[in-house]
Order: sequence, then C-alpha cells, then structure tokens
Amino acid sequence: MRIDIITCVPSLLTSFFSHSILDRAAKKGLAEIFLHDLRDYTQDKHRQVDDYQFGGGAGMVLKIEPIAAVIRKLQSERTYDEIIYMTPDGERFTQRTANRLSLLKNLIILCGHYKGVDQRVRDLFITKEISIGDYVLSGGEIPAAVVADSVIRLIPGVLNDETSALNDSFQDNLLAPPVYTRPADFEGHQVPPILLSGHEAKIEEWRIEQSLKLTQEKRPDLLDN
Amino acid sequence: MRIDIITCVPSLLTSFFSHSILDRAAKKGLAEIFLHDLRDYTQDKHRQVDDYQFGGGAGMVLKIEPIAAVIRKLQSERTYDEIIYMTPDGERFTQRTANRLSLLKNLIILCGHYKGVDQRVRDLFITKEISIGDYVLSGGEIPAAVVADSVIRLIPGVLNDETSALNDSFQDNLLAPPVYTRPADFEGHQVPPILLSGHEAKIEEWRIEQSLKLTQEKRPDLLDN
Repeated sequence: MRIDIITCVPSLLTSFFSHSILDRAAKKGLAEIFLHDLRDYTQDKHRQVDDYQFGGGAGMVLKIEPIAAVIRKLQSERTYDEIIYMTPDGERFTQRTANRLSLLKNLIILCGHYKGVDQRVRDLFITKEISIGDYVLSGGEIPAAVVADSVIRLIPGVLNDETSALNDSFQDNLLAPPVYTRPADFEGHQVPPILLSGHEAKIEEWRIEQSLKLTQEKRPDLLDN
Repeated sequence: MRIDIITCVPSLLTSFFSHSILDRAAKKGLAEIFLHDLRDYTQDKHRQVDDYQFGGGAGMVLKIEPIAAVIRKLQSERTYDEIIYMTPDGERFTQRTANRLSLLKNLIILCGHYKGVDQRVRDLFITKEISIGDYVLSGGEIPAAVVADSVIRLIPGVLNDETSALNDSFQDNLLAPPVYTRPADFEGHQVPPILLSGHEAKIEEWRIEQSLKLTQEKRPDLLDN
C-alpha cells in the first residue's frame, strides 16, 4: 500500500512517521508513506498556500492551485483508489472503514489547515471525506496520522504477531477485556486469580464474559450492530 | 494550562509539539506541555516498561510500577484536575469535552501502547477515560495529540484571531459553511457570486443557510441535541 499525504506543515508529521509502526511497515516493504509539502507546488515567489476567504471572516483558506498541482502530478504517475480529505464534517471514521481502506493500493490524504480548503478542491478532486470525530483540530495532519496508523497496522505482516490486531476492540464489535501483567500483586492489588490458573479454556471464557460485560456497560450500541 | 503526557514513545510526539499551535501557546505562556518517558521511571536495568500479559495471548501490556512512579511524582508537585487515559473503550471525545477541559489547570494524559496498560492502573489512578473514536491505533500518542490540540486552541489568545475558533464546526452544533479563496475563477469553476458582493448581512445569511443545509444533509443528529 502507498499513502501520499498532502500538507502545508509536513514538519508536524515527520517524527510520527519515522518512529511508529509506519516506519516498520515501510522497512518491511509493506507500506510506503510520502509527505508532500504544498509549498513545493506554489507558483508565486512567496510560495503562498493560503489566502483570505471570500466574503470576509477570520481564518485563512488553503488555495486550490497548489493542491490541484500536486494531486494531478500524483495522478499522472499512478492510479489512486481514493483521494481523501480529512474534515470534521466528513463521514465518521470507524474500524470498518479502516478495514476497507487497508485492502486498497494507492491513497491520497489531503490535510486541511487553518479554516480548511477552498470548496472547489472538495468538489473537483476529493472522492471521500473522513472525520475522525466530532471535534475541531488545528489541521488535518493528526487525523491523517490516525487514518494511516489504523489502516497500516491491519496489513498482514505489519504487526509482529498478526493475531494482535484481531482481538483489538471493535474488530468483533466488542470492547477488549482487561489486561494484566507482572507483578501479580501491586501494593496489595491482585491480578484476577483465573489469569494465573493456566487453564486456557477458562481464561478464554472469562475474557469473553468480561468483553461482553464491558460492552454492555459502556457501549451497548455496539451490540445492536 | 499545563498538560503532562506520559508515554513509552515520546519521540512519536516531539515534532508535533514543536511545530504546532501547542508550541505557539507555550511561547505565549498560555499552555505548557511536558512529555514524560516511562523508561525514565523504571527500576530494572533493562528499563522495561512492558511485559507479557497474564493468561497468555498476543500483545504486550504496560506495567504498573513505572506509571505509578511518574504519576505519583507529578502529584507530589501539584494538584491535577484529571488523570486521563486514552483508550478506545473510553468516553467518546467531543467538542463539548474539549470546551470543558480547556477550563482546567493541570492535566495528565497517559498514553497506552501495544495491548494497553495493566488494568490496575485504570482502577487506581485514572479519573477519566477518553476515546477519540471507534477505531484502534498503535498507541495513545496520536489521541493525546488530538486532545491537546483541540483543548489548547480553545484557550483565549492561542489562536491569532479569537473569533476563528468560535465559528468552527460543532461550536454551535452546526457544520461550518463552505469557504473559498482566490482565484474567483479556477478553470471555469466560480466562487458563489454572493461572496464577492461585499454585502455583509447577505453573506452572513447565506453562510447560516449553507451551515443548516449541510448539517441537515450530513449530520441531522447534531440538530437534535
């Protein structure tokens, strides 16, 4: 899988991409991520990527020309399955979307910043608008990292132990059961004895019970799906 | 406001915090963020922060002792309003939570990683569990960045223009209207003429209309709140 991320602040993402599983996935040849700086696609001498919004009001808007230039350049090199725009009014991102995207080959993710992008970018180029949740951030960079991380960890071989992703929360519409590690006694607080029993079948049963109980308590809506 | 972030991979977050509005907020003296490396609070010579989970199964679990040590050290220095754990089974993060947190003084955010933290950490130390959405990530680091960014940009004076955050999506339960910037004509695609009219009252009316229409189409649930 290849993900091209377009941003006006690539520096926000560099340490994230060089220290996460994304870097590991790249080294294993399973995923490649490229950061594209919008400023490299400007034509004017000030390398201006944003401008005041028409009609007045606070907040700058990302201009269409540099975005059009980078998307067209990438499209001339390969075919993209989706051109995604990260925006709080997009379709809500879920584990199901992550699963679906993890099967694709080439993705572009455009990060908004400041007040967002010129609406014509969305009308003319974007094939999918994604929101990671009902809150506003300074830009689409962290959301792009959310999508890249959640999708790439699902690609077989990226995690060291493939079963690790399979029993995460949401993969079966259940929240994950509680986990414990050493010491068995921390200042008088004990690990549930069942987990120390060595009885695999009973442990598995306990975990399913705990998952169901947690989901019923915290997220009964997941059980209706 | 002061936010202390506890993580076993601080390098994931360094470029984010040094290039975002968080850095600007820090320079203006409006917010301080400190990253704490769990490895600095280990007692063993391997500086081990995680261990296999009791009962078997894939995925490592963050140990309680280093986490207890850093939280207790921070608590001995000042009083914290909340000790937050980022986890997909936590309370769903929304703009309302961001608004509420932006009024607090001292926060700790604990990032899970691998399979999560020993359940006893959650039982003994955590006062609030937050999920940024229904998807699984490699760790709580990006989610901590989501919370820090969304909260700190709401602190008066952090954004250059304070009105900028007020007309973002969700602040009034409406999605933001479309925005446009120069050129007025991009390859034949025009900006809506009303925005070029200079008629402030009509522009404002158009924007509210657009916001309502978008919200009705994309997120009718927001109008019920």
